[in-house]
Amino acid sequence: MRIPNHIGIIPDGNRRWAVKHGLTKEKGYKSGLEPGLELFRLCKKIGVKEVTYYGFTMDNTKRPSVQTKAFTKACIDAVKMLSNEDASLLVIGNTDTPKFPKELLPFAEKRQKFGNGKIKLNFLVNYGWQWDLANYIHSKGREKDIMNNLNSNDVSRVDLIIRWGGRRRLSGFLPVQSVYADFYVVDDLWPDFKPQHFYDALEWYSKQDITLGG
Amino acid sequence: MRIPNHIGIIPDGNRRWAVKHGLTKEKGYKSGLEPGLELFRLCKKIGVKEVTYYGFTMDNTKRPSVQTKAFTKACIDAVKMLSNEDASLLVIGNTDTPKFPKELLPFAEKRQKFGNGKIKLNFLVNYGWQWDLANYIHSKGREKDIMNNLNSNDVSRVDLIIRWGGRRRLSGFLPVQSVYADFYVVDDLWPDFKPQHFYDALEWYSKQDITLGG
Repeated sequence: MRIPNHIGIIPDGNRRWAVKHGLTKEKGYKSGLEPGLELFRLCKKIGVKEVTYYGFTMDNTKRPSVQTKAFTKACIDAVKMLSNEDASLLVIGNTDTPKFPKELLPFAEKRQKFGNGKIKLNFLVNYGWQWDLANYIHSKGREKDIMNNLNSNDVSRVDLIIRWGGRRRLSGFLPVQSVYADFYVVDDLWPDFKPQHFYDALEWYSKQDITLGG
Repeated sequence: MRIPNHIGIIPDGNRRWAVKHGLTKEKGYKSGLEPGLELFRLCKKIGVKEVTYYGFTMDNTKRPSVQTKAFTKACIDAVKMLSNEDASLLVIGNTDTPKFPKELLPFAEKRQKFGNGKIKLNFLVNYGWQWDLANYIHSKGREKDIMNNLNSNDVSRVDLIIRWGGRRRLSGFLPVQSVYADFYVVDDLWPDFKPQHFYDALEWYSKQDITLGG
């Protein structure tokens, strides 16, 4: 089976999951933590080299504050939890606004190696596609080298994006690194993650004809 | 039913269709012309305001020349055919390389109105996502205004992308305008286009919750 080098994860559906379980929307984020850890361990086990989680975006921070507080806390907890794993971890996002949690600043300054650090792990926090591309303006004369001039320049091309929660859209996820990515959608909501979702995505991916636009 | 303002069309599968019918690969492109006209008329009929066809890319021109000649001819024929319809037509792509067909230069210089010109029709020819973004470098100081500083700045945000041929990827299609687009995949190959594919895509789209990243 061909294993993707880099998998992007869009863990959507936390709020819908909460409502389905009779909870208020913001109560759903906490239930996304355990799936995130489980999925990371599965990626590592099968030999994926890089994983990127879509935490929250600058767009998302316009939601009601009870929600923004809850997903910010979930992202802080997730990054701390993942820093106990073998991973080379980097948080990527706009650290210049108050929406970026100060607890995560040390993780955004430089990539840090935890344990054997073998797998690259990126976590997008207060990320914005406009913010990401804006850095490219300052690379005058290097038009062809877009990828190396993004704010997310330490994130590689994405091979496979898996989105939970049934929506078939990128929602601003790494537009440049995702230009050739194969996109797999799981209808179940993220807190209902099962390893089988991941196996199904991998099996589907391994049957795709990869051309990188050629 | 909520109708998308702007639909992006990725008409993939012409070569696979040819092989399936015992033809050599390059023979498939011609069979994509009629579906293109039919789909355009359906879009116009239901009130879509803008349609963008993915013709060919700079990446694609690295294919064997018998194929590049065939898809270039198909794009020239398609644009000429569509210029007989009511449309405000613009061809978008890198006109600075010999791969751009000179027959289409007049259509790339400025948007031209044919008939009542009510529907905006964009046709990507010798398009490249790097080429598209490269113009943004020259917009120093206007970081937030990405969309207006692309080479494709006359193309609006895409609401719905429909891709024929079963592949679930954007393959470099308008990465900036597509950040929030809903992505619908038809498994049938493009030359096997049926109006029902389009109706199914519209029905699916009208059930999506549009948030534009919020």
